[in-house]
Amino acid sequence: MANYLGPGLSPMLSVRRGAAAIDFYTAAFDAKVLFRFDAEDGTVIANLGIGPAQLWLSDEEPQYENYSPESLKGTTVRLILTVEDPDSSYDKAIAAGAKAVCPVRDEHAWRIGKLTDPFGHVWEIGKPLK
Amino acid sequence: MANYLGPGLSPMLSVRRGAAAIDFYTAAFDAKVLFRFDAEDGTVIANLGIGPAQLWLSDEEPQYENYSPESLKGTTVRLILTVEDPDSSYDKAIAAGAKAVCPVRDEHAWRIGKLTDPFGHVWEIGKPLK
Repeated sequence: MANYLGPGLSPMLSVRRGAAAIDFYTAAFDAKVLFRFDAEDGTVIANLGIGPAQLWLSDEEPQYENYSPESLKGTTVRLILTVEDPDSSYDKAIAAGAKAVCPVRDEHAWRIGKLTDPFGHVWEIGKPLK
Repeated sequence: MANYLGPGLSPMLSVRRGAAAIDFYTAAFDAKVLFRFDAEDGTVIANLGIGPAQLWLSDEEPQYENYSPESLKGTTVRLILTVEDPDSSYDKAIAAGAKAVCPVRDEHAWRIGKLTDPFGHVWEIGKPLK
């Protein structure tokens, strides 16, 4: 695995329409595709870089208990994305098709906003205030 | 926020029994408590460090669409934990109370195992093979 960064923790998002999800995360978060496997049945597994962080995504496989938010009608893990400029990162994600939940505002010593992506995953995009 | 590491991505796990979850992650993954807020109703929000990575956890709040795996009967995001010694890290998590799903083995150029923690979250613990 060429992209091993040493010890760390990366979320693996289960989605429906994995190929479209790669396109969305690329547009919304400037994600870079570090690894991508397209199976013959149209499903994908991908490793994406977002700034210095990484995430994985794959089409859901209910037979292995990997469920998309669309299947479970909710999510069990949110994604906390820290960026230098939360306002512009949030606006870019909304422009790419995410749905606003809480606009960016100052709260609990963070400047932070919350949105849902088109695949049902929930993101909080922010930065601690100085 | 004293623990700001710059741009990054951290998962926020929703759980039932948040205080017990902090104890479990401390025992299973040597997590360090970087921030902890105990509310009067017994619920918690915490920021944990696992090696160089961070995660957040909080008691579920279905009214805000934050659901535990126990409520949704599954998870929408898995946690990919890369460590120097997957075998010993896996064994330690099992000894702390996690449930084995796939024991550590060589697969797809990784040495990796899969387990479910007592709160329903799914972890893959591994390391790319040289």
